[in-house]
Amino acid sequence: MILKIDHLGIAVKDLAEAKRAYEALGLKVQAEHDVPSEKVKTAFITVGESHLELLEPSDPSSVIAKFLEKRSGLHHICLLVDDIEKSMAEMKAAGAQLLDEVPRVGAGGCRVAFIHPKSAAGVLLELKQV
Amino acid sequence: MILKIDHLGIAVKDLAEAKRAYEALGLKVQAEHDVPSEKVKTAFITVGESHLELLEPSDPSSVIAKFLEKRSGLHHICLLVDDIEKSMAEMKAAGAQLLDEVPRVGAGGCRVAFIHPKSAAGVLLELKQV
Repeated sequence: MILKIDHLGIAVKDLAEAKRAYEALGLKVQAEHDVPSEKVKTAFITVGESHLELLEPSDPSSVIAKFLEKRSGLHHICLLVDDIEKSMAEMKAAGAQLLDEVPRVGAGGCRVAFIHPKSAAGVLLELKQV
Repeated sequence: MILKIDHLGIAVKDLAEAKRAYEALGLKVQAEHDVPSEKVKTAFITVGESHLELLEPSDPSSVIAKFLEKRSGLHHICLLVDDIEKSMAEMKAAGAQLLDEVPRVGAGGCRVAFIHPKSAAGVLLELKQV
């Protein structure tokens, strides 16, 4: 079952500049993390029950660096689920194309899996189970 | 004050096809609206305290039609605020570039205003007061 929007991933070229921009909008950065496995530096901003996740590549080979070659801004929507294997199986049975066959370990040790944008009207979706 | 993410606007070429895709992911469309003022047809999907708003242009001159000439997918984040004039004044004072000088009337009679993507790390932000 999908519980809520966990976060929105926003690809930025310069994390410090992006933080200043969001702070000018009255949104405060609560936490920053280095995620070497994904080759990104992140800053989290809480908005209601969700977060904005600003993502700056820490290496030119990161997925976010590739995305930024084309554009900056909204990159993915992450949906919190209660049972990731069950959600993945149900989505696959309904014809959705998953980018992960089994969940992988994401930031903070959560299990995550991605859904191809073809199966979500052009949006990259991430599933996450805490 | 920013209260929560109200909705995410997702530009789609074919609303019926997008609805089928999201329903295959276990997300149900709760409401559909024609918004002649914005020249779009919309479908709303509730996720936690927020919504996904699928947007199909109903006229080639709509902003969403122009966006779809380049790409489909995530178009904007709408933030719910308690006092839109106050939020706009505070953001402007802090250096953010607004696309609306005064709030305009959006779908359902709410007052809305947009913030330039330059002031939000490449993301088109909408403010909304119910």
